[in-house]
Amino acid sequence: MTHLSSGNEQSNEGRLLISCPDRPGIVTTVSRFLYDWGANIIRSDQHTTDPEGGHFFMRVEFQMDDLDRRFAELEEAFGETAERFRISWRMSRPSHKKRMAIFVSKEEHCLVDLLWRWQIGELNADIAMVVSNHPDMEKWVSPLGIPYHHVPCTRETRLEAEQRHLQLLEEEGVDLVVLARYMQIIPSTMVEQYQNRMINIHHSFLPAFIGANPYKQAYERGVKIIGATAHYVTEDLDEGPIIEQNVERVDHRCGVEDLKRMGRDVERLVLARAVQWHLHDEVLVYGNKTVVFR
Amino acid sequence: MTHLSSGNEQSNEGRLLISCPDRPGIVTTVSRFLYDWGANIIRSDQHTTDPEGGHFFMRVEFQMDDLDRRFAELEEAFGETAERFRISWRMSRPSHKKRMAIFVSKEEHCLVDLLWRWQIGELNADIAMVVSNHPDMEKWVSPLGIPYHHVPCTRETRLEAEQRHLQLLEEEGVDLVVLARYMQIIPSTMVEQYQNRMINIHHSFLPAFIGANPYKQAYERGVKIIGATAHYVTEDLDEGPIIEQNVERVDHRCGVEDLKRMGRDVERLVLARAVQWHLHDEVLVYGNKTVVFR
Amino acid sequence: MTHLSSGNEQSNEGRLLISCPDRPGIVTTVSRFLYDWGANIIRSDQHTTDPEGGHFFMRVEFQMDDLDRRFAELEEAFGETAERFRISWRMSRPSHKKRMAIFVSKEEHCLVDLLWRWQIGELNADIAMVVSNHPDMEKWVSPLGIPYHHVPCTRETRLEAEQRHLQLLEEEGVDLVVLARYMQIIPSTMVEQYQNRMINIHHSFLPAFIGANPYKQAYERGVKIIGATAHYVTEDLDEGPIIEQNVERVDHRCGVEDLKRMGRDVERLVLARAVQWHLHDEVLVYGNKTVVFR
Amino acid sequence: MTHLSSGNEQSNEGRLLISCPDRPGIVTTVSRFLYDWGANIIRSDQHTTDPEGGHFFMRVEFQMDDLDRRFAELEEAFGETAERFRISWRMSRPSHKKRMAIFVSKEEHCLVDLLWRWQIGELNADIAMVVSNHPDMEKWVSPLGIPYHHVPCTRETRLEAEQRHLQLLEEEGVDLVVLARYMQIIPSTMVEQYQNRMINIHHSFLPAFIGANPYKQAYERGVKIIGATAHYVTEDLDEGPIIEQNVERVDHRCGVEDLKRMGRDVERLVLARAVQWHLHDEVLVYGNKTVVFR
Repeated sequence: MTHLSSGNEQSNEGRLLISCPDRPGIVTTVSRFLYDWGANIIRSDQHTTDPEGGHFFMRVEFQMDDLDRRFAELEEAFGETAERFRISWRMSRPSHKKRMAIFVSKEEHCLVDLLWRWQIGELNADIAMVVSNHPDMEKWVSPLGIPYHHVPCTRETRLEAEQRHLQLLEEEGVDLVVLARYMQIIPSTMVEQYQNRMINIHHSFLPAFIGANPYKQAYERGVKIIGATAHYVTEDLDEGPIIEQNVERVDHRCGVEDLKRMGRDVERLVLARAVQWHLHDEVLVYGNKTVVFR
Repeated sequence: MTHLSSGNEQSNEGRLLISCPDRPGIVTTVSRFLYDWGANIIRSDQHTTDPEGGHFFMRVEFQMDDLDRRFAELEEAFGETAERFRISWRMSRPSHKKRMAIFVSKEEHCLVDLLWRWQIGELNADIAMVVSNHPDMEKWVSPLGIPYHHVPCTRETRLEAEQRHLQLLEEEGVDLVVLARYMQIIPSTMVEQYQNRMINIHHSFLPAFIGANPYKQAYERGVKIIGATAHYVTEDLDEGPIIEQNVERVDHRCGVEDLKRMGRDVERLVLARAVQWHLHDEVLVYGNKTVVFR
Repeated sequence: MTHLSSGNEQSNEGRLLISCPDRPGIVTTVSRFLYDWGANIIRSDQHTTDPEGGHFFMRVEFQMDDLDRRFAELEEAFGETAERFRISWRMSRPSHKKRMAIFVSKEEHCLVDLLWRWQIGELNADIAMVVSNHPDMEKWVSPLGIPYHHVPCTRETRLEAEQRHLQLLEEEGVDLVVLARYMQIIPSTMVEQYQNRMINIHHSFLPAFIGANPYKQAYERGVKIIGATAHYVTEDLDEGPIIEQNVERVDHRCGVEDLKRMGRDVERLVLARAVQWHLHDEVLVYGNKTVVFR
Repeated sequence: MTHLSSGNEQSNEGRLLISCPDRPGIVTTVSRFLYDWGANIIRSDQHTTDPEGGHFFMRVEFQMDDLDRRFAELEEAFGETAERFRISWRMSRPSHKKRMAIFVSKEEHCLVDLLWRWQIGELNADIAMVVSNHPDMEKWVSPLGIPYHHVPCTRETRLEAEQRHLQLLEEEGVDLVVLARYMQIIPSTMVEQYQNRMINIHHSFLPAFIGANPYKQAYERGVKIIGATAHYVTEDLDEGPIIEQNVERVDHRCGVEDLKRMGRDVERLVLARAVQWHLHDEVLVYGNKTVVFR
């Protein structure tokens, strides 16, 4: 569940995400720390993978007067506490919007849906740019004042394109890359750089129908339900940590084109949810899985 | 999500449920208390209805050596802490099985489903008895060694029946009453006595189709989806706090009998979930709503 | 299931919809008629409400050479056949696009979704106009070259507005009116004129939460699932024949604003489906219900 | 949608299933044939895989006076008609119950569910026997008066077991074999003999997680939705024509045991539906897919 707060409240809101081997006293330590700093916990979620020797995950939303001014100080102080407990952690503020880049090829449905959500305030992010290997999508993007970068990507220009991508992302300080039906291979450099910060939508219910033309595969296998999967991008194609999946019932009357059409509605909702959860720092990754504190 | 643990682990497991007006320091206090007693938190869920002046709910699962022996002592100690914070609370142990009574009339599907789940260990409860205003269901119950009480309930015998019910429940120390398609009115005395401890399954997607013959009502309205609702029983019929709901898609080809048949599968799953969550102390009630920490 | 065919095929495609009291020989008559005219049935759906004395519904998709030229002749011939059997019927052609008007107030999500589907070819219709009692939505409409009519609708101007609406619809020969979150009462004249040709989206799972602020009602009742309903508009508010419904799971963490946000995604998909099915002549109405041959 | 009729009506009811290359005139021929025999079509479903050169499927439910007496005659007559059109076909009567065998190993949930549905009249079949490689399930079966055959199946006894199976099925004239979590390989002889008449439930959303321990595979992959698949058994394990699938949402809190528990509810509903549809002759197979006229 992604909760939106108004601007005023947000400036005092913070999030703390924690991941560490489970051991007694962590919750006490964290809640005590926040209490001592005058921070009020407004939401807290925890998960332990296994009561015996498992891994511990925690996400806390808190309110603290004057947070913006004292944020660096708070981070430094928690860093010391965390070190004693060997806690991996990060803090963030909803008032500090993430910068997002959207990559897209020739299918516009996911892009258009994200743009609309952004326009009505459903995405707590700045869209720094849209990047595409085709010029076709510009008409959806430019009218909104968002930079559109057409970076052709053929066998010959691939290396050049990759460098251009990295340069653009760096120049604009992009925090999150969303592959909204971008049908090109992502180079290792970029995968590494955006580890757990690059989300792809795959148009099947993974791990079914990995690879190309999943709707055609689904049609040929005669499945009664199709789906879509949003996941973080890793080196292995379609194998990254799954953030969200959803499905739709189909039947023998559906041809491949029907599956594609129905699938579009599944894809854009699944991707939008995954992006929203990521923007709200609700997703933690461990191994090849996600903990989603929605 | 209801997690089952094996018997050995369970004897050291406890649950703490808390409900109070939100204020800073509660989480710190509770986690500190458990830490000081050597209890390890294995799961914790929290909810605040509103960051400003809302109500706070918390459910903690913990493990503590020798819990069975020290439980009364632990309860007493927490009682003192709780008083200072004006916290409503209760503690429970999975090793201490709740005693459950099932009331049923002439439709066996919910009863049979609960009995099967009980047999394979999905319900952490003792079934103290099955009560019915008809003799028909005995064949499903007696072979399992569960007492079956046929208490006829006509206009003339209603008062007598109600007293018999209360007597049976008291004699057997019943903690939870499940109305598994019991088609009789529940008297106020019993409603009060089993406040938030009596679960009913209503065969519609409440608040749609309150009252009698919901499937006929649904058929006549021409809905495209039917549902079922499990809720705690209150004075107002079909108005109690909803624990769980689910739905199934139907179409113009479904007659009333089809809706009933399809509805049976929705009803029994919805009721089973609600009962399981209740047995795991995952449901908290506030006003006419529930917080479900599944 | 809505199947899209390419333009070339479409010009030879026809649809025949039939509704009459059930009696032997209707299917034979219809199939024989089409066979004699050299029409090939490519899809056929039938439904009888009751084997004994029920009502019969049939929808046939057929292909026939030179259909465009011979359509009037075919209609005339079938009319004679139909009269003998007292069959209510209509014929249509996918190549003959319906003209659609969209009414909207201040919530843009359903409008924007329909416009996008229209742009990518998912709606086999011409959008003749968008009508609103507010000026706000023009920015989504005008760039697409679709006329936007701002017709204010206050207590004082209601009558004037209604006449303006009827005039606009008549001038543009509108076949289908879609109320895409239009929050004004529709006058009887318009309801009658567009009987079974005016679709409304209600933001609840009807018949639950009829009337104003359904998400607030849902929040206060504490339901675990929310929904949306697309229906034909009749005199009785929210009581018309239901075309499509869908739902989404929610929980105690969802405030009213969360329900609204999640509901938007349900609403626009439900409305889009209902509109698509109507445009494909897949919906037949009888009494207060629909038969949907999707 | 599976519609149940009472016994009296059923004796006059017949079903005709047709499969052939699409060509003009088939519907006319079939409806004309039934009309000439005084049969009233009470339901008819058709499907063409492709308007151009596709395959045609049809299922007709009809009522005809004195059907029981005239059935053989009717079949013979239609056989002649069918030959002229090179139509593959079969006729059946709901009054003529199919004989069903259930195979099971050590998980009882699918078996128990089918037995319950059979007891309350949801399965229009005789259960001729239950066969298991373990003795454990007898307690669920014998009290109902259904023969239980414990046929051990080890590496040494496999051949013997297979012959015993075939002998049992033949002796009892079994029409349908249901593998209700039967964890043994089915020999080719039996697969061939029961082609499109042997249904298996696989505890995953095929084609995901083919093979052993699908819930463990699902847990390790970190999927957000689990499922189950009912399919006809073919030589290739888990590759047969899919009849029905369904899914359930899970999250990071679910361990393997939770997935198994939640999966049980999906499995038994999916299997029950597939069996019901098969018993109502609603499933047609072509290639590796099914047409389901529910």
